[in-house]
Amino acid sequence: MSVQSRKIELYDTTLRDGTQGEHINLSVQDKLLIAERLDEFGMDYIEGGWPSSNPKDEEFFIKARKLEFKQAKLCSFGSTARFAKSVETDPNLLGLLQSETPVITIFGKTWQAHSEKSLGISDEENAELIYRSVSFLKSEGREVFFDAEHFFDGYKNNPPFALKMLLSAVQGGASRIVLCDTNGGSLPHEVTEMVRHVLQVTGIPVGIHSHNDGDLAVANTIAALQAGATHVQGTINGIGERCGNANLISIIPNIMLKLEGTSTSVNNLGKLTQLSKFVYEILNMPSNTRAPFVGKSAFAHKGGIHVSAVMKESSLYEHIDPALVGNRQRVLVSELAGQSNIRYKAQELGIAIPEKSDVIKNIVNHVKELEHKGYQFDGAEASFELILQKELGSFKPFFEVVETKVHIESGKDAKNVDQAVLKVMVGGEIEHIAADGDGPVNALDKALRKALIHFYPEIKAIKLIDYKVRVLEEKRGTSAKVRVLIESSNGRNTWGTVGVSTNIIEASLLALQDSMNYHLFTVKAALPAAESPLPQS
Amino acid sequence: MSVQSRKIELYDTTLRDGTQGEHINLSVQDKLLIAERLDEFGMDYIEGGWPSSNPKDEEFFIKARKLEFKQAKLCSFGSTARFAKSVETDPNLLGLLQSETPVITIFGKTWQAHSEKSLGISDEENAELIYRSVSFLKSEGREVFFDAEHFFDGYKNNPPFALKMLLSAVQGGASRIVLCDTNGGSLPHEVTEMVRHVLQVTGIPVGIHSHNDGDLAVANTIAALQAGATHVQGTINGIGERCGNANLISIIPNIMLKLEGTSTSVNNLGKLTQLSKFVYEILNMPSNTRAPFVGKSAFAHKGGIHVSAVMKESSLYEHIDPALVGNRQRVLVSELAGQSNIRYKAQELGIAIPEKSDVIKNIVNHVKELEHKGYQFDGAEASFELILQKELGSFKPFFEVVETKVHIESGKDAKNVDQAVLKVMVGGEIEHIAADGDGPVNALDKALRKALIHFYPEIKAIKLIDYKVRVLEEKRGTSAKVRVLIESSNGRNTWGTVGVSTNIIEASLLALQDSMNYHLFTVKAALPAAESPLPQS
Repeated sequence: MSVQSRKIELYDTTLRDGTQGEHINLSVQDKLLIAERLDEFGMDYIEGGWPSSNPKDEEFFIKARKLEFKQAKLCSFGSTARFAKSVETDPNLLGLLQSETPVITIFGKTWQAHSEKSLGISDEENAELIYRSVSFLKSEGREVFFDAEHFFDGYKNNPPFALKMLLSAVQGGASRIVLCDTNGGSLPHEVTEMVRHVLQVTGIPVGIHSHNDGDLAVANTIAALQAGATHVQGTINGIGERCGNANLISIIPNIMLKLEGTSTSVNNLGKLTQLSKFVYEILNMPSNTRAPFVGKSAFAHKGGIHVSAVMKESSLYEHIDPALVGNRQRVLVSELAGQSNIRYKAQELGIAIPEKSDVIKNIVNHVKELEHKGYQFDGAEASFELILQKELGSFKPFFEVVETKVHIESGKDAKNVDQAVLKVMVGGEIEHIAADGDGPVNALDKALRKALIHFYPEIKAIKLIDYKVRVLEEKRGTSAKVRVLIESSNGRNTWGTVGVSTNIIEASLLALQDSMNYHLFTVKAALPAAESPLPQS
Repeated sequence: MSVQSRKIELYDTTLRDGTQGEHINLSVQDKLLIAERLDEFGMDYIEGGWPSSNPKDEEFFIKARKLEFKQAKLCSFGSTARFAKSVETDPNLLGLLQSETPVITIFGKTWQAHSEKSLGISDEENAELIYRSVSFLKSEGREVFFDAEHFFDGYKNNPPFALKMLLSAVQGGASRIVLCDTNGGSLPHEVTEMVRHVLQVTGIPVGIHSHNDGDLAVANTIAALQAGATHVQGTINGIGERCGNANLISIIPNIMLKLEGTSTSVNNLGKLTQLSKFVYEILNMPSNTRAPFVGKSAFAHKGGIHVSAVMKESSLYEHIDPALVGNRQRVLVSELAGQSNIRYKAQELGIAIPEKSDVIKNIVNHVKELEHKGYQFDGAEASFELILQKELGSFKPFFEVVETKVHIESGKDAKNVDQAVLKVMVGGEIEHIAADGDGPVNALDKALRKALIHFYPEIKAIKLIDYKVRVLEEKRGTSAKVRVLIESSNGRNTWGTVGVSTNIIEASLLALQDSMNYHLFTVKAALPAAESPLPQS
């Protein structure tokens, strides 16, 4: 970092503005866990909630007193008082004080139309409301940040009004003026111009709070920083109302790796991918595979022409080294697959392939044939690895399903039945076993486990965490082929497997078998060779 | 549009660069369907594929000759020749000519390191390769666009080299120079500066092709346009390799609604949301609810404080009127279905609903309950209409499946069986019927037809043209609920129906039943009342 580097403050509002997003729901415990992580990662400010808006946020601030942050300051959020005359008894402001946070962020109207129509007050009255609200909180010993709601729209509409409101907050003692693009529709060049003007006028540090309604939240944030702003508000993974808030997961690496002359308090950017995943997990949301910097696909190369070149010199094909943000390069085995893709993949999986052998050629042919049938190994790397290991002679299936019967009954007066009956060859014997389930695929899963558990107690650890069905050749209607992708986990690792058939039950069973075989293969491979329990049959 | 408005050309590469994305897979038929839609929407150029890279793209270009575009020009894509000396016999260039498109887009290296390391040739040789490749295609009567691969990185590294390559393309006769941020890591201010320079130097129209690795693809595109570029390459929904291409679904409304003095050939921006959904459907990908402009949440207001204000004057809370892009405002107070939605939908279907009745309330409750179970009526309007007509008393089911048995057998030595046995109440009697099929769902379909054909010969006309399965609550693994969407046709009209269950067979049967009932309902409704064959039971 250069000596002149400008420190950019990171202000996270995942726990407040983030939770305004559709389907976003965080418990108090979730919020505490996330807050700790944010501090660990290196945020300067963590906005915990709006205490007087709901009891959950009040509880959060009480429990948060026990958190011991390494560097972050906790902030509570709320609006200016309702009436300028009675700020000292305003329930919202009192709620903010009761949250006992060192920093309080309050928002006020800086778009004249909002002041007039929503609050129904004069310009003077609004200015006084802002001034008094800020100075009251300040007089109680708190640092106060002022969020200028709808600033960019307000400035476009009436610059003197918008600036007057900012100056009221400065006079009241606010230490930061944060310009909010509340409706999220501003363009970067507008942000640049207005931030410059505000910096000239106010003379205190200026922040940016943008929303993604125009798909420009990250760009607007960067434009503000380039214009001189030094404080960034955003959320992890860009969660938030409508299209979301500015995504800190994209903004932070842009600041640290690309914007010259800027720095942050983040000490290990390499934990960025982990942080993103952690928040998705807590939210119980699937992560965005295409997310810049941290997505599973962010450094995944598919184009056949690229692959050999990527292997030669990856800096020519990647805008940053993925390790800098804790991500990694991947090469996708797809129908564009040539020998170099397969070799790369093998290398990635840590599998040595003899230079001079037909193995690669056989694998390429086998994979092509399967792809022609509708197989796809993106997201089913475990199935791919089994093919590879089988061809190399290091894997033999641990069992074989020799007969499958599934029986389903439902009806008004009938009993609902979802039964699977399997004959499974395992340990040299045929296990003939049946199970009921919640739907036919679940019944199959249960039956297969029942057949294997005595031979391979390790399969107990397998949890199926994701199940996807894609209909191929959709235009063939109900007789179309389907591809089933299953994601499994043993608590530490996850792996994906695939099956294809015109019969969805069959396709599911193929993916299930691969999942169990893969788990057994990896567990057994970890054992000394002598104990290898490959079946003798 | 102002008189001075600058026309921005839209170049869609969903069918080529888009398919480089992970999990993106389009059949030839899919590509043809999308191409037609893109033309209808108003794209100027549609890049169909890379003919010599795979047989699928070659087949596409053959079939695409029958498409009659209203305004778009079809483009094929490929690289410069391998050797400057033999452009006339280069298989890649010949493949491009054989695609018979009026426009050919070829890419060449404009980053010196790539030219040196990937191609292993001198600067002069690369310049000649570009010049000769372009001029050969041009001499064959095609318009040639030059995609300057890795231009921004190349210019940063060695401006004279990068510009020299552009000039070679111009000298060869290229009519557009498209600057590609191939690795996707450039910042908007860099794009601005370099586009300006290129415009000064080349003197021909300049385009921008950006990728989203820095979460800035849309911003970089806008920066290029503001700097004077007049041609935009991107994909629908931003699909594409790694983090995706620049998202045309975000760029187009930004151009048309925000960038002053610009226009496009799009004649009805109101179809934007539909276009986005259509492509997601074809890709069998869930749509991004948070997508700017078109996402389901893009105009969804959750903040309690906002809601009443939003209803008062929505322009204060929305950056654009959602109707401009075919989206709509939602208020997330309750579940999705409100009375006004239902009324709106009924009106759309041409169904009169009495003003004062409990019908609407009952429907709202019923739909809410179904949505809670995982139903969704986007793309399943026939199922929705049946609910509406049933509540209004104008529809009674034509039959009832009272018992379902499905039996599946497979195995090494066993015979493969996919059998469905149904008891169907129809015309006051129970039909007990069985059928074999190609997979269990196909067996069900056949059995149901067998049971109904004597009573309702009209069902013969029904063809199932699409069958889709989506797993809900994916994290529940094999016991998750699934939603089946079926699209049917009678040769003239198509209609969609839906079923939800933890049992995929059951979900499929529900959607099948709705499809047949809907067809019978519409056929019978067309008959005079006296002939109405509604069952008496």
